[in-house]
Amino acid sequence: MSATTTRSLPKSERTREAILRTAVAMASLKGLEGLSIGDLADELKMSKSGLFAHFGSKEELQMATIETARQIFIDEVAAPALKAEKGLPRLWGLYDGWLSYAERKVFPGGCFFTGVAFEFDGRTGPVRDRIAALMQEWLDALTRAVHESQKAGHLQPSIDAKQLGFEIHALGMGAIWASQLLDDKKAFAKVRAILAEKLKHVQTKNAPGLCDKQR
Amino acid sequence: MSATTTRSLPKSERTREAILRTAVAMASLKGLEGLSIGDLADELKMSKSGLFAHFGSKEELQMATIETARQIFIDEVAAPALKAEKGLPRLWGLYDGWLSYAERKVFPGGCFFTGVAFEFDGRTGPVRDRIAALMQEWLDALTRAVHESQKAGHLQPSIDAKQLGFEIHALGMGAIWASQLLDDKKAFAKVRAILAEKLKHVQTKNAPGLCDKQR
Repeated sequence: MSATTTRSLPKSERTREAILRTAVAMASLKGLEGLSIGDLADELKMSKSGLFAHFGSKEELQMATIETARQIFIDEVAAPALKAEKGLPRLWGLYDGWLSYAERKVFPGGCFFTGVAFEFDGRTGPVRDRIAALMQEWLDALTRAVHESQKAGHLQPSIDAKQLGFEIHALGMGAIWASQLLDDKKAFAKVRAILAEKLKHVQTKNAPGLCDKQR
Repeated sequence: MSATTTRSLPKSERTREAILRTAVAMASLKGLEGLSIGDLADELKMSKSGLFAHFGSKEELQMATIETARQIFIDEVAAPALKAEKGLPRLWGLYDGWLSYAERKVFPGGCFFTGVAFEFDGRTGPVRDRIAALMQEWLDALTRAVHESQKAGHLQPSIDAKQLGFEIHALGMGAIWASQLLDDKKAFAKVRAILAEKLKHVQTKNAPGLCDKQR
């Protein structure tokens, strides 16, 4: 939701939106279980009961926080990538957009989704199920972009699209891990170089070669 | 610590050990912040005050839980791998041992360390610092095993040991993510195959070819 749209909303909607933006930032640092209604109320200078009026339970707050993070991810990563030409430019756009959103700290704790994925992978219930569904969507989007690159004649038809999609995702998580936990300043540049090199080996002669231009 | 050693310890030490084993299992599912003295006391049928006598604070409990998990990781993964010959057998041993310990659910929530790494990467303090130090040790161990494989003449001297160590780690995290969150039953077999294939391309003619035997 853009700032302009937000301003034209009724006050209660704007308050809800402000709460959720703060909740996403907080959860990216401390996890969805670390979201405390008390801390949120303090941060937003609201009363706990005022905050409770917007969300009936902690689980409802967690679910709404995930949807807000999803919308931000779409705005920051998916939508810009979908504007690129189908094939390698779009595949690179998705990957580069994801790394860039983590690197620019759109969420202060790095990639919201990687964090909550590991937080909830040992739990059960609707929050975990929603996170798993969104992560599967992301993996499918990467795999589809590899498939499209093959259809567009940019990548060799013999490569396993699912496997390449998975490898690309794993490398990105590695960069997020090294950057966030080990404070490795070169982590994102490193995985961009690793992927560009990997793609060189599976490109066709018709590939647009945008990877190098975009690096 | 083996079962035999545990039995010869004084009672308070045995109790402490039992608390920590339960804490590690619980934290692998719910995170180190999700460790509750109350839940632990219930699980162990102890009083909260009895449990508090062993650990002065939640942070002390978290730090001790990490050291217990580290000892289990050494027993299950590092020590068996270090018995293998220096070079490719040891590199494969480390990797395969790590995947196997996650796959066998030595900790019910999968890999304890991957979970807590993402849980604490947005926090500060001694718990985060200890996790980061242990993760760096692991990355260094993988990198050293690649180096040793080059020295032993098993891997081409031109490859970047640090980069291969990083890629190997990222792939493993990808498998843990896919297995734990997406319930992908083939995740571990897939990354073993990906690594074996990757190693084939950077092996020398002198490589012992243990990867295939061990798969």
